[in-house]
Amino acid sequence: MPQPSAFSRRRFLQLSALSSGVILAGQNTTADIRELGPWASPYGKRSRHETAVRDATGIVMQESETPQQALSGTITPSALHYERHHAGIPDINPDTHQLLIHGMVERPLTFSMADLYRMPQTCRTYFLECAGNGEHSFEVGEKTSPQKLCGLFSQSEWCGVALGSLLRETGLKPRASWLLAEGADACLLTRSIPVEQALDNVIVAYAQNGEAVRPAQGYPLRLIVPGCEGNMNVKWLRRIEVSDQPFMTREETSKYSDPLRNGTVRQFSFVMDAKSIITRPTYPMQLEKGWHEIRGVAWSGRGKVKSVEVSDDGGKSWHSADIQPPILNKSSVRFGLLWNWDGTERILTSRATDDTGYVQPSVKELIAIRGKQSLRYHNNTMISWRVQPDGLVTYLRTD
Amino acid sequence: MPQPSAFSRRRFLQLSALSSGVILAGQNTTADIRELGPWASPYGKRSRHETAVRDATGIVMQESETPQQALSGTITPSALHYERHHAGIPDINPDTHQLLIHGMVERPLTFSMADLYRMPQTCRTYFLECAGNGEHSFEVGEKTSPQKLCGLFSQSEWCGVALGSLLRETGLKPRASWLLAEGADACLLTRSIPVEQALDNVIVAYAQNGEAVRPAQGYPLRLIVPGCEGNMNVKWLRRIEVSDQPFMTREETSKYSDPLRNGTVRQFSFVMDAKSIITRPTYPMQLEKGWHEIRGVAWSGRGKVKSVEVSDDGGKSWHSADIQPPILNKSSVRFGLLWNWDGTERILTSRATDDTGYVQPSVKELIAIRGKQSLRYHNNTMISWRVQPDGLVTYLRTD
Repeated sequence: MPQPSAFSRRRFLQLSALSSGVILAGQNTTADIRELGPWASPYGKRSRHETAVRDATGIVMQESETPQQALSGTITPSALHYERHHAGIPDINPDTHQLLIHGMVERPLTFSMADLYRMPQTCRTYFLECAGNGEHSFEVGEKTSPQKLCGLFSQSEWCGVALGSLLRETGLKPRASWLLAEGADACLLTRSIPVEQALDNVIVAYAQNGEAVRPAQGYPLRLIVPGCEGNMNVKWLRRIEVSDQPFMTREETSKYSDPLRNGTVRQFSFVMDAKSIITRPTYPMQLEKGWHEIRGVAWSGRGKVKSVEVSDDGGKSWHSADIQPPILNKSSVRFGLLWNWDGTERILTSRATDDTGYVQPSVKELIAIRGKQSLRYHNNTMISWRVQPDGLVTYLRTD
Repeated sequence: MPQPSAFSRRRFLQLSALSSGVILAGQNTTADIRELGPWASPYGKRSRHETAVRDATGIVMQESETPQQALSGTITPSALHYERHHAGIPDINPDTHQLLIHGMVERPLTFSMADLYRMPQTCRTYFLECAGNGEHSFEVGEKTSPQKLCGLFSQSEWCGVALGSLLRETGLKPRASWLLAEGADACLLTRSIPVEQALDNVIVAYAQNGEAVRPAQGYPLRLIVPGCEGNMNVKWLRRIEVSDQPFMTREETSKYSDPLRNGTVRQFSFVMDAKSIITRPTYPMQLEKGWHEIRGVAWSGRGKVKSVEVSDDGGKSWHSADIQPPILNKSSVRFGLLWNWDGTERILTSRATDDTGYVQPSVKELIAIRGKQSLRYHNNTMISWRVQPDGLVTYLRTD
């Protein structure tokens, strides 16, 4: 007779029966509240009991990481969206901010915010991921949370004007093949983008999750380049210059390029490959025996997530997880799989497959292709968690 | 030769050429910022230039309205989600909060927050709309914004446990046909819900737009009843009692029922019918001649929005608007249509049709069916805006 699998579906009553937290009727301990509470307010706050925050890191706090283990669903609250600043956050007045498009165009034009607001609006949900997301995964110890391993990843609903609409206004000269996007921060951060990429659903975004883009995310204008590494999504966008070649900026030469094992360097590695991470159960959670949903988030910069598999034996056997609809292009999904922990040591791992057929690699597989020295950027390797017999869940390095 | 329509598609350059805000290249006035800005922070804020807030109303500020005219996309920022409180906002500790399910069940059970977190998570984007949304539309003057006309409508991504999963745990006795949902506010607000409705994608939600449900929205638990009037979506959910009949609570007898013209009362009018509103251009916007996108939001509690039409002549002629994907069940969509204002008085109106074939009615049509005295609740009539020759856009009452 086959062993009952830890992933078999059962009536959830079995979970309840095993849970020490379940109490029979008549013992509802939620205090009856007899006093009127405060009434409506102009701009709401979260509960004083909720304390999850971004974790700011770096010498001058140039980065902050999203607390993945505290979040649900696919929208990252704007207040918890990861940050990566190169010269801090400028304070921009939208009434005077303008976007200049010039270079190899038929008609150089400048657009005010008012100009952009009256143009057709495009709204899409896309993830953003820093190319360096996960870069410390080979250095950290077992007491590491999803926030530290995968905190430079967030997702928002972005609204604005399709860049393609603006480029139709300016026209493109016949040899136009690259453009430069420039931010209005003190370093005037710049990145080169091929024109064909710029016409592929790129948004000049003025809104994020319903309201204006937050200052830390580029207020009042951010370029959203779906599926591509975070710093191509230029914040505080002020200028686009069109050319017939890439601009070879600092952010695509000395940085954001990937040294390969043969001594060459991979440049313009725009697209973020398929990745997934289990966000629960993870460090520092203390697990009880019994039924738990293993859940997390998966995405691909190449298209849609096709499937996510979960293993509890370090990758020897895999089980298909459920994916929450809708499954959108270059947008993350939530996955989940009900699992029965029997109290023994288990290794939990997830891997995503996208609709191009690309499968998220193990650390060994990616090192075999690119070499370990290349994994500072674009490290999309599988992430494993060890469930110890005492119930503590810890990060398991697999390099 | 036919007259060129104000809705004909043209190259957008024509808009640019007409816009006083468009300036040629070389005149980008965005100040070069040479000083480093502040760095990353634990919990972000919006720009000091963004001032849209909820408008709190009522004798004790028991309601607050979402500023629709300031928002983009389909997600309402949680800080701007509308509020309707019956006894203020309780301050609940999630560590001791529990949900009791009892009555005509096989096994009465109490669930702690920890119990719910380990169960399979369901995430869906649903709108919430107070049954009284738009109730003042026959009283207000022309200087009325979308916030005042339609501010008791918001949308979030909600995550939690399917109520059906919890009811499978408790089991239902054969005659179980209704349940009571009770909140933990000082008035212990209660509503009756048919069991078949409770099994139709209802979520016991602990998360909203990624983070924990906000206190004003029911922290730590809110019942989400897709497509149904706001106050069935019981906040601060603490108890569900199963019965074989409705409970006839205050909130479904003296309130939240609709007097009809024949002297009878429509009760248990759960579902919010298809509705739409143009959010731009609207009061207090001052319009310039030329091309503008007319845009807004549409939804139906019966299913998916199938189409939205826009008129600029008070409903004599209608034009199909573009709808932003994805189109989800019981979830709002954004619509938009490019339009050329010629400087004459125009009447802008929108109407939504859902996938059941239901068409949003005019005021006259709905009064013919239900009588004007019934329109305090469930007023989903078309909303019109007058574009005056001087460019001021005002609300146009059509009753």
